[in-house]
Amino acid sequence: VPPIERLGIVGVGLIGASFALALRAAGAVGRVVGAGRDPGNLERARALGAIDEATHDPAAAARDADFVLVATPVGAMGEVFERIAPVLGRDAVVTDAGSTKAGVIELARAGLRARIPQFVPGHPVAGSDESGAAAGRADLYRGREVIVTPLPENPPALVGRVRAAWHECGARVSEMTPADHDAVLAAVSHLPHLIAYALMGEVARRADAKDLLAHAGTGFRDLTRLAASHPVMWRDICLANRVALLAELRRYQDSLSALGALLEQGDAGGLERAFSEARTLRRAWTAQSAVEE
Amino acid sequence: VPPIERLGIVGVGLIGASFALALRAAGAVGRVVGAGRDPGNLERARALGAIDEATHDPAAAARDADFVLVATPVGAMGEVFERIAPVLGRDAVVTDAGSTKAGVIELARAGLRARIPQFVPGHPVAGSDESGAAAGRADLYRGREVIVTPLPENPPALVGRVRAAWHECGARVSEMTPADHDAVLAAVSHLPHLIAYALMGEVARRADAKDLLAHAGTGFRDLTRLAASHPVMWRDICLANRVALLAELRRYQDSLSALGALLEQGDAGGLERAFSEARTLRRAWTAQSAVEE
Repeated sequence: VPPIERLGIVGVGLIGASFALALRAAGAVGRVVGAGRDPGNLERARALGAIDEATHDPAAAARDADFVLVATPVGAMGEVFERIAPVLGRDAVVTDAGSTKAGVIELARAGLRARIPQFVPGHPVAGSDESGAAAGRADLYRGREVIVTPLPENPPALVGRVRAAWHECGARVSEMTPADHDAVLAAVSHLPHLIAYALMGEVARRADAKDLLAHAGTGFRDLTRLAASHPVMWRDICLANRVALLAELRRYQDSLSALGALLEQGDAGGLERAFSEARTLRRAWTAQSAVEE
Repeated sequence: VPPIERLGIVGVGLIGASFALALRAAGAVGRVVGAGRDPGNLERARALGAIDEATHDPAAAARDADFVLVATPVGAMGEVFERIAPVLGRDAVVTDAGSTKAGVIELARAGLRARIPQFVPGHPVAGSDESGAAAGRADLYRGREVIVTPLPENPPALVGRVRAAWHECGARVSEMTPADHDAVLAAVSHLPHLIAYALMGEVARRADAKDLLAHAGTGFRDLTRLAASHPVMWRDICLANRVALLAELRRYQDSLSALGALLEQGDAGGLERAFSEARTLRRAWTAQSAVEE
């Protein structure tokens, strides 16, 4: 008997499909039922071998499942929790893949109500600018971090089952409070998306956009890659983590304005110091991190 | 006889060494004399086969050369032009690799004086966060763009010799006015560097920098890669293109503030529209450009 006998996945996109494929590759899952809105996407998930059965009803995916992953955009999770609460088995554990945690937990408390102890919030810090089941890969989580943010109500055994499932996918699992998670992710993930959208958007609105882009190279490419991310997903994440993200945005704008002031004053020494400080940390980070360059 | 019989390179870093290596690989150059300040770097350039002879004197590299590349940081070019002017042969052509053009041309007019018709300004839009001769590669310019910004005084034959040399390196060559060059590069290259330095610098100054970076993934990595660039080189470029860069910075800050306002107001529709607009252009650009993802 595999560790997960029946897996329900609500939202079979890149994240959900990759979770199923990784567990299958590890021999860690039996039957997989996927719920989603787009029949074509569900059919591709089935063709890929990510799911055995497709449904439009989140409740049908959760019923009889011992493990449920909610991997829809954050904005759709409230309804999903409401739909699955009545059918959730006593021994089932539910986790999610949302990029913000405080907001998702609020939705889960409202939707799952008495079942909230069965919900162990999580966030696989992996992804790509691709989306949909067709982009799913069994190795998406290999070496990547998954942050689990347990609730006071969670029995340790359920937290352990969620951690174990991600380990089977090859991920490193860490634990944080939901508030810490949201503050850290605002700085290292949500703000970078906003930066990329702002830069690409500024160019997009110009009459000479085509001309400019014809001369853009690898630097501009790297800086705007995140602007290819899914607009609805990132709208939801930004709104769900609004307070922390606005705080980060202000800090970043101050940092940018400080460089602008040095430039305006022609302060060569100040610019060099600021650039050197940034470079030193960047090099120290990539030298000691698992992040490949 | 190769197209370039004797090449003088002043500033044998990544750019200068790669130019020499590329010309050698194409059989397009005879003898190469490299001038620079750092004896260790010059020795590495010689060991790599980029240069045949090393000197500390820019004039010694330019004397008897039929082709001179000035590839020092922009801030050092004024002195280089002054030093090489008295020894420059009548038939020699001089070009540079500076990332800004109006400022370099001003330095060239002041330093080369009557020899200014022999100076054809250029900018290879290539590079890396590595620097020094040891990072030199014969294929650095393959498929990359080199922008030549001729002066009214340049004889067409000299412009042709500079274009031909870059073609030998495998580059695509385009022509622009110096002012257009500086405006375009401010938008697609200089501003992205400022953005990366500002983001990395903001994180660097925080007490929890290590903690934050431990959870940073590929998005943050892509966005801050340019912050590993050479601080002195980028200080010079930013100052030399100060006016155009400050204009770009203001536009970008407005774009960022507009996203911040949508976020503050919780305007889901507005955020989604802004993100979609940026994504559409990003995808159209990468689909049709030579820039590999």
